[in-house]
Amino acid sequence: MKHQLIQQAIKAADEAITSEDFDALMAFYADDATLDIKPGLIANGKEQIRKAFIAIAEYFGHKLVVEQGEMQIIQGADTALVIMETILTVNDQAGVPARITRRATYVFREVPDGKWLCVIDNSYGTDILAGQREEVLTAKIE
Amino acid sequence: MKHQLIQQAIKAADEAITSEDFDALMAFYADDATLDIKPGLIANGKEQIRKAFIAIAEYFGHKLVVEQGEMQIIQGADTALVIMETILTVNDQAGVPARITRRATYVFREVPDGKWLCVIDNSYGTDILAGQREEVLTAKIE
Repeated sequence: MKHQLIQQAIKAADEAITSEDFDALMAFYADDATLDIKPGLIANGKEQIRKAFIAIAEYFGHKLVVEQGEMQIIQGADTALVIMETILTVNDQAGVPARITRRATYVFREVPDGKWLCVIDNSYGTDILAGQREEVLTAKIE
Repeated sequence: MKHQLIQQAIKAADEAITSEDFDALMAFYADDATLDIKPGLIANGKEQIRKAFIAIAEYFGHKLVVEQGEMQIIQGADTALVIMETILTVNDQAGVPARITRRATYVFREVPDGKWLCVIDNSYGTDILAGQREEVLTAKIE
């Protein structure tokens, strides 16, 4: 049941990123959540996170589509670690759509009303370690 | 400062695993922590985690040595996600020492007295996703 709530929250957040509905997206995060924008650059708190997503949408020319692949959830105490394939459809520098698969890590906390909020969003997973920062470009779409 | 406390806690835990000091090791975990023993098999709570480490020590013929490689810590709210290279020195099936490098993920929670406790210990990182379960055998040691 908890796992379903977390899965639904991630799906809703990815849909909000795709549709650029940043108000809906902010409901996904705890007030003092941290987003890993790219290795070495973080956003902390909803104001910074919202600005980061606005910049990300611009960067991808408003054509970013985010979908979920395989997901594993490990719960410990009132926290959950989510390990998930995130599939990004973007336009490359030549304007050609391309698909990027990342293995992301999220940390969720349970809050008093039974909801789960994202406190850490690290879409790079273990690739934030030096020497592991190559993205997996799985396919180009003509 | 918080990052130093977490680094020290991980180092102390790895030394406790190496020296098979399971009482010291249990101080690392929250009461309701979860340990990913291997993909698909978890231990929850200190009693199960202690039993798992006793079994792991047996499995490796009491010759397991655990060390830390590069570490990245991302803090959000009162939780921290640690992404770290874990270097295991073990004996392979022929009794030859071998070195295994994993990219592990830990989740820590801050507790009232300012300590940080491990609530989720997933030494497989994003490799728990199907098709990603090959370990990196970096070197054999003669």
